[in-house]
Amino acid sequence: MAGGEVDDHVEVKNQQVLARDYISAIPEESDMYVNNTATIKLKVPTGDEFNGSVLLKNLYLSCDPYMRGVKHRDTGTTAQDRIVFFAPDSPIVGYGVSKVVDSRHPELKAGDLVWGITKWEQYSLITNTQSFFKINHTDVPLSYYTGLLGMPGMTAYAGFYQVCNPKKGEYVYVSSAFGAVGQIVGQLAKLMGCYVVGSAGKADLNAALKRYFPQGIDIYFENVGGKMLDAVLLNMRLHGRIAVCGMISQYNYEKHEGVTNLMHLIYKRIRMEGFFVNDFYHLYPNFLDVMLPFIREAKIAYVEDITQGLENGPAALVRLFSGRNAGKAVVAVAHHAQ
Amino acid sequence: MAGGEVDDHVEVKNQQVLARDYISAIPEESDMYVNNTATIKLKVPTGDEFNGSVLLKNLYLSCDPYMRGVKHRDTGTTAQDRIVFFAPDSPIVGYGVSKVVDSRHPELKAGDLVWGITKWEQYSLITNTQSFFKINHTDVPLSYYTGLLGMPGMTAYAGFYQVCNPKKGEYVYVSSAFGAVGQIVGQLAKLMGCYVVGSAGKADLNAALKRYFPQGIDIYFENVGGKMLDAVLLNMRLHGRIAVCGMISQYNYEKHEGVTNLMHLIYKRIRMEGFFVNDFYHLYPNFLDVMLPFIREAKIAYVEDITQGLENGPAALVRLFSGRNAGKAVVAVAHHAQ
Repeated sequence: MAGGEVDDHVEVKNQQVLARDYISAIPEESDMYVNNTATIKLKVPTGDEFNGSVLLKNLYLSCDPYMRGVKHRDTGTTAQDRIVFFAPDSPIVGYGVSKVVDSRHPELKAGDLVWGITKWEQYSLITNTQSFFKINHTDVPLSYYTGLLGMPGMTAYAGFYQVCNPKKGEYVYVSSAFGAVGQIVGQLAKLMGCYVVGSAGKADLNAALKRYFPQGIDIYFENVGGKMLDAVLLNMRLHGRIAVCGMISQYNYEKHEGVTNLMHLIYKRIRMEGFFVNDFYHLYPNFLDVMLPFIREAKIAYVEDITQGLENGPAALVRLFSGRNAGKAVVAVAHHAQ
Repeated sequence: MAGGEVDDHVEVKNQQVLARDYISAIPEESDMYVNNTATIKLKVPTGDEFNGSVLLKNLYLSCDPYMRGVKHRDTGTTAQDRIVFFAPDSPIVGYGVSKVVDSRHPELKAGDLVWGITKWEQYSLITNTQSFFKINHTDVPLSYYTGLLGMPGMTAYAGFYQVCNPKKGEYVYVSSAFGAVGQIVGQLAKLMGCYVVGSAGKADLNAALKRYFPQGIDIYFENVGGKMLDAVLLNMRLHGRIAVCGMISQYNYEKHEGVTNLMHLIYKRIRMEGFFVNDFYHLYPNFLDVMLPFIREAKIAYVEDITQGLENGPAALVRLFSGRNAGKAVVAVAHHAQ
């Protein structure tokens, strides 16, 4: 009997990090709480509604800058906007690396490793597996699949190679250069033979840009928005390209800062293009073909800031927004061999 | 003797419209004056410095929106910005249609018709002929070469076909739709089978756009900037394109209006691209191949607002900026046959 199968299966503790409510700003530790009393059966339930579902053991969870409340004046229209990272008494939602414990998915079996959108808990039952990629290369750190080999890496790859149309010798500026995406873009640009300057901070933007780019900027990988974009527009070169990946400076403004130098789009015939990594996942195999050799030959470095223990996840996420972390913020929940 | 040739040649009256000074705002009639006493010899002078020069009889002069002072916070870097339309006691500079009276240019001879950057006077000695195109098709109104078949037409053609990448059935919005460029873009879009709405004015922009584009906007041909751009960004569709041709609302602001909705570039993966017609003149023959049949088959209409007489040029130019003109503003200086 099907019901019996589930009931017979072992039930284990399942530590969780939950949100108290929706949030509309940068998360604080008090927006989250840890529940140590939940349990879970390590089996995908029977029933048609669980066709294609998987039961995952989460190994690494990713802390990402978009895991915040956004005060929208308008809701936007993409799937990205519809991901709710914080919902009342629900585990935080985010990217992670996980091991399949049980599967009713035709292409995944117990023991497989995957990365995709999971939840902040030890074990997760996932019915929507659309975001998951199977991990076939395990000679690199598994945590890299939250960053260098995961969504941030694909974002850097798609934004730089596909949107920026870079050429050897060009002048490349990356804002938020030490973030999960920025540090990859900078290295891809250097490997291509570009002159690269990254920034993390503010100061007198226009003067600093003129000093570092006396000839001007060909490519700007935009993570910041607002006053940073205004200063960059003044320093762009003819036929420059701006890949708009994020505008982190604007996420928490009720009314966004106005950008006043858009006339330079005409003066310098600049192409400015917003992009979203989900449009580029068909290139994931090509991405791995480029990145795995770079990693194996140590041509690319990736700094991680790994916090041990799910219960320390809230502090790690809050630290990300304080600017006090260095490198890609990851929470280690369990080791692969466990 | 070379000097003798010039001296022997007929000297005629050369009515001129001159600027009193540089201007930094919309021109007023008092910024210009008419000189009825100047004379000119109808011959290109001898001497190496006049190799390649032409002596033109101006037939039609174009009144264009960029013929104003611009209060730059930054000078920009393109040739367009360096054209000085108003300089102290100098004839106004602008596009026109002219007949070659005398030529030391290898590809132009007396009697040829040309269009390009000339001066507001009956006859002009032009040493920099880079901007000139020879007119080979005279079965259409010659004045069209200041608009439909000249720089505004090429701007519409390049911006719409080359920058916007339009597809049949798409939703196209054109601001300043009754201007020299806008009226052409709108018709090209219709001929391609797009749904087109043009605007000329303000009102509640966001509400109006939602009413005319319940499904949103695929292509925006940007002539206005500022608050208009902000409202359009809210109403763009996924993978929309914005061709930035001009930002007329911003030309006279010391401090430009801030654009606050650029996050929508990401939400909707929008490409926004500034362009300048000079980058596309290699396509002028292709442009004529498209436009001449449209004109001959009356598939495209072009409204002109022709003012007779050079001495009425200042009033025509000022009227352009008042919004009281309807159609492409042209000053008729002389008829072809004269």
